[in-house]
Amino acid sequence: MTDPNSTVLNLDWLISVDDHILEPPNLWVDRVAAKDRERAPHVELIDGMDYWVYDGKRYPSSGLSACAGKAKEEFSPEPLPYSEMRPGCYDAKARIEDMDRAGILASLCFPTITRFCGQLFMEASDREFGFEMLQHFNDWVVEEWCGAAPGRYIPLMLIPMWDPPLAAKEMERMAAKGVTAFAFSENPAPLGLPTIHDHGRYWDPVMAAANELRMVASMHVGSSSQVPQIAPDSPFMANLAWGAIRTSGAMLSWLFSGMFTRYPNLKIALSEGEIGWMPYFLERAEQVLDKQRYWVSRGQKFMDHATTDVDMDTLNIRELFRNHVYGCFIEDHHGIASLGEIGEDNIMCETDYPHSDSTWPNCITGVKKVIGHLPAETQYKLLRGNAEKLYRYTPAEPPSRLNG
Amino acid sequence: MTDPNSTVLNLDWLISVDDHILEPPNLWVDRVAAKDRERAPHVELIDGMDYWVYDGKRYPSSGLSACAGKAKEEFSPEPLPYSEMRPGCYDAKARIEDMDRAGILASLCFPTITRFCGQLFMEASDREFGFEMLQHFNDWVVEEWCGAAPGRYIPLMLIPMWDPPLAAKEMERMAAKGVTAFAFSENPAPLGLPTIHDHGRYWDPVMAAANELRMVASMHVGSSSQVPQIAPDSPFMANLAWGAIRTSGAMLSWLFSGMFTRYPNLKIALSEGEIGWMPYFLERAEQVLDKQRYWVSRGQKFMDHATTDVDMDTLNIRELFRNHVYGCFIEDHHGIASLGEIGEDNIMCETDYPHSDSTWPNCITGVKKVIGHLPAETQYKLLRGNAEKLYRYTPAEPPSRLNG
Repeated sequence: MTDPNSTVLNLDWLISVDDHILEPPNLWVDRVAAKDRERAPHVELIDGMDYWVYDGKRYPSSGLSACAGKAKEEFSPEPLPYSEMRPGCYDAKARIEDMDRAGILASLCFPTITRFCGQLFMEASDREFGFEMLQHFNDWVVEEWCGAAPGRYIPLMLIPMWDPPLAAKEMERMAAKGVTAFAFSENPAPLGLPTIHDHGRYWDPVMAAANELRMVASMHVGSSSQVPQIAPDSPFMANLAWGAIRTSGAMLSWLFSGMFTRYPNLKIALSEGEIGWMPYFLERAEQVLDKQRYWVSRGQKFMDHATTDVDMDTLNIRELFRNHVYGCFIEDHHGIASLGEIGEDNIMCETDYPHSDSTWPNCITGVKKVIGHLPAETQYKLLRGNAEKLYRYTPAEPPSRLNG
Repeated sequence: MTDPNSTVLNLDWLISVDDHILEPPNLWVDRVAAKDRERAPHVELIDGMDYWVYDGKRYPSSGLSACAGKAKEEFSPEPLPYSEMRPGCYDAKARIEDMDRAGILASLCFPTITRFCGQLFMEASDREFGFEMLQHFNDWVVEEWCGAAPGRYIPLMLIPMWDPPLAAKEMERMAAKGVTAFAFSENPAPLGLPTIHDHGRYWDPVMAAANELRMVASMHVGSSSQVPQIAPDSPFMANLAWGAIRTSGAMLSWLFSGMFTRYPNLKIALSEGEIGWMPYFLERAEQVLDKQRYWVSRGQKFMDHATTDVDMDTLNIRELFRNHVYGCFIEDHHGIASLGEIGEDNIMCETDYPHSDSTWPNCITGVKKVIGHLPAETQYKLLRGNAEKLYRYTPAEPPSRLNG
């Protein structure tokens, strides 16, 4: 990790902990045996449009997944063929040019066609084959995406969510290749999986592996496959603005889960979840814990799930948050104004390239508008220091900027 | 309304815009014809416990509805007979003594057995009779509860949620008696009712009446009869801390509903919803509106509810909030720290007597701990000025405090 005391702090570059890869069409086809090329996820041109084809289903790419380079007036959810995407969406070398232009020193990318935590392979009819495809993705991320530009990409792996012991083995395999983060779900329940509160401790093999290997559980907003809906006919814009209810629910679930006590090295990253909601929910969690824990403990017979095996008398919300929970922001002025309440060691920045929330190509200037008034050391933490520490990642030296 | 410039500001008393009445057992029995006494909501002693009996169902009072005077260690959800409640729970004169002791100058109370917006009568098998009972409640609130101590209680009426034209008439009837607030639902959808986005404009008679009569739509958290649940087995404490997702959803629904444009006098009060979540969700709403409205407008054919009849190009989130939305707090330090972002004219305080969130008997001292560092004029607005203005209410002169 870069030592912030060794030199004048370079505040011209950021590490983005939430960007997106649109998988290149040949990702799997190039890696599987010839007999499996039609069976592996692959792209077919159907009626003039590119579709990913896998397990008997077709998936077009949404224009909203490839907004980079477009004006907001041009964003569209209509299907988009690869030929109309900015190459940085799917090409690791072209992406580096876009990163250089925007002041992005390094980037952690979530996958697209696999969905945020590999739901594609979990939902497939043949999970054994799905696991092979998942492993190909993991190898590709390390070898080809990250390999294309050493020191510029932080690898993120997928796990077979349907088989925690197998997931633990895969985590071990990828940790040996330098991977420090795996994609997890903000809420496994809507995916039909046991939650982190499961009394059978379904997730223990995964969390034990993460604890042992010091791998970060990275949960992208939407990784529960849930779209928040205030009411069946509430305006889409209202639902969109309400998105952080998923991330806030995830944070509260984890803080009250007991996981961090059982696995003291475990850290979670709430990706694209923003941070401005954190201070309120942390304070509220402390208040209900202080005042309501007696009757909640006593109320067991009156309520489902009134109790957990967590000792509520010793639960320290702020300490658990400080030691285990990380958030990130794009343009969250309120979150940064509240940084003193959240803690400057727990927040990172992101650029969401190439999605519609992205500020690309004005990423570093955009972030500096939000944090530029803070002390240089704080800025450095938010821009890259915290990400370097959390993901145990040393980025390349910043390039001389050619395209800015 | 008290003129804050006329004198040295009295910061020793507050107006609470969210407290609770446990209806006295004889409320309806005393008002209906003799033949209806068994049919009206009434209390029966069954196996040593008081139950409200109505429409063939029995309802005990939860101990959590009557915590006043108890230490937090004693709070309990177990059923509680009236004889074990603090008289201030159900007796308007006894309540005044408790208010005097805690520095509560005036109080707006939500009902209990009727539920927060009169769901009891809506769900009854005979809604015509239910409406009679609802009218008795409204008359009782004005005549007996508020009448017991003029200038100390702000009346809140119920409306027949199932019949908006009838509701409008009832609002007119009660407005003539000085009522300036009606209970509405934070989200009518889970109650089986059309939402405020209903294309058939189900709620127009109510909102037109509120606009005309300048009545505040007061939505208590939980008035959708929904209990937030992060996942089916998420710890109860996590769900409890997550409660504001209902209020935040309500705020966003209203801001994007177009209601405030159609009814410019309409104001909504989010009761017991706290305020610390507001700045984030307001900023997020502005951001999605700025950046995503083009594709959302264009995306109609790809999504349900992608569009509303609201003109998103002219929608001003902050202005709508400032002119129409009111929140209140008990101990929300983050909300008060963010008051500059929320606006000091939109926030009131509450004491939640006699529920488990209440700080009683330390209400005024509790609020002063949170706001005491603010300028006197700001404190005055939060303590009472904003409530007086919103509810067009002039409280009695503060009594000399006897019990403090």
